[in-house]
Amino acid sequence: MFDEITIIGPGLIGASLGLALKSKKICKKIIGIDHSKKNLQDAIKVKAIDEGREVIDVRIQKSPIIFLCTPVSAINDVLIEIANYSSKDQIISDVGSVKNIFNAKVLKLNETKFSLVPGHPIAGTEHSGALNSLQTLFQNKWCIITPLNNKNKSVKIISQIWKKIGMKVAKMKITEHDKIMSITSHLPHLIAFTIVGTAFNLDIKKKQALINFSAGGFKDFTRIGSSDPKMWTDIFFENKAFLNQTVNSFLKDINKFVNNLNSDNRSEIYKLLKRTKQIRKSILKRESKN
Amino acid sequence: MFDEITIIGPGLIGASLGLALKSKKICKKIIGIDHSKKNLQDAIKVKAIDEGREVIDVRIQKSPIIFLCTPVSAINDVLIEIANYSSKDQIISDVGSVKNIFNAKVLKLNETKFSLVPGHPIAGTEHSGALNSLQTLFQNKWCIITPLNNKNKSVKIISQIWKKIGMKVAKMKITEHDKIMSITSHLPHLIAFTIVGTAFNLDIKKKQALINFSAGGFKDFTRIGSSDPKMWTDIFFENKAFLNQTVNSFLKDINKFVNNLNSDNRSEIYKLLKRTKQIRKSILKRESKN
Repeated sequence: MFDEITIIGPGLIGASLGLALKSKKICKKIIGIDHSKKNLQDAIKVKAIDEGREVIDVRIQKSPIIFLCTPVSAINDVLIEIANYSSKDQIISDVGSVKNIFNAKVLKLNETKFSLVPGHPIAGTEHSGALNSLQTLFQNKWCIITPLNNKNKSVKIISQIWKKIGMKVAKMKITEHDKIMSITSHLPHLIAFTIVGTAFNLDIKKKQALINFSAGGFKDFTRIGSSDPKMWTDIFFENKAFLNQTVNSFLKDINKFVNNLNSDNRSEIYKLLKRTKQIRKSILKRESKN
Repeated sequence: MFDEITIIGPGLIGASLGLALKSKKICKKIIGIDHSKKNLQDAIKVKAIDEGREVIDVRIQKSPIIFLCTPVSAINDVLIEIANYSSKDQIISDVGSVKNIFNAKVLKLNETKFSLVPGHPIAGTEHSGALNSLQTLFQNKWCIITPLNNKNKSVKIISQIWKKIGMKVAKMKITEHDKIMSITSHLPHLIAFTIVGTAFNLDIKKKQALINFSAGGFKDFTRIGSSDPKMWTDIFFENKAFLNQTVNSFLKDINKFVNNLNSDNRSEIYKLLKRTKQIRKSILKRESKN
């Protein structure tokens, strides 16, 4: 058990982490740091943090563990700010959805001013903010750790914390993580965000009809596509390289589908549809095993 | 209350309809017709039909109402077969997801050998078959009726039946229906079926990782993309014209997104993401009103 843990950016993920840390008695006191007073008040209200601060200052020295739960585009700046006060024994982990984000300055500070363990708990909802936090958000979900050239000890401690709050932990390389996420998460979100715009730009007189008759698939897309805009703008830009590759493969496959459709190749389309059903089955089977 | 209703193709939709008709006491007896003995046995087992037949024959004359719940590609042939025995007072409705499907021969038979009322209850799950049928499948969902030049009476009767089993009924033109469905249902399914293939063709060593880390969007796509392959092959081909238009608009929007990404146009992408969130809100608001 730690005396104190700091969570920078106690929004949906950060505040849920606070609740989970408390319920598992992993620390005595949780500090929340956020530019926004409102966020801090919300996080205190739901009891995700015990004390709120609007600035990073010398007091952060008291926390042996610090979690960064800000949008990914802010992570480097926050780390550099922390380094003004921190020491190499303090372990910092982030929760960003893209992992190839650390700049040269931060990488140089690692192991001298702090010990950085990049992480990504794959959990969330389409809602945001501390008021939507859930103590069980991480339960039975996967957390990916992408170690830098760290001392093994820090990696072990962060892994143990995530495990303690119910996550399955996997380790992988940064590029492997970003490639996999580009297809399992980032492209689905890109599509979902796009298709809603496509629908509302179509030449359909009564837009209300699109909403009334959205049950056949479209509604699921709008749910995926209603995640936090700031967070997702960041993710798309930070994982631009892999996302471009993945979008290109997807567009090729869509064009192949359309070609099969327009050349009346029923058997090819049927084969594709059947294959998808089988892959779905293997996902469900795998899940029931875990 | 009718003495007898026939359901041709008592699969997920047909058998759920049988269960709903019974629970609302809309008819005394339900006949199921299917080429497959197994389907009939399943439908009898779940009590969706009272009697099963493997052929369409003269006995169909006894049913004032007939529902066609076969894949859309079979509908014309089945209607022509029914016409050998039926009379113009018998009302036939289908449940196909595409409505511009009736050939010249069938349209000529309408109002002389039967009274055809095309319909589309927007309801379903990713499962298929009578064993997955649900009495409440249609509850609070929309049913779209796309009348031909029918006597109003038949349209009224079919509308009343769907309303009686809990559906909200909307009337629209055939082309309007097919255009709207191409974006709210057919394109989402096309994408979902395609992206699963894209994922498994990517250069990722451990395909298992795709399955483990599918929670971030991909899993929802595999669910949408695990619907019945035969049914969906039919739908894509029958609505080819509108689907092509809609896919083209979507591809243009994806390319616009990628261009904004690659020219670092953050504000445009943020605007798009924010708009999607607002549209989602209006869908939820609309639903809570209904």
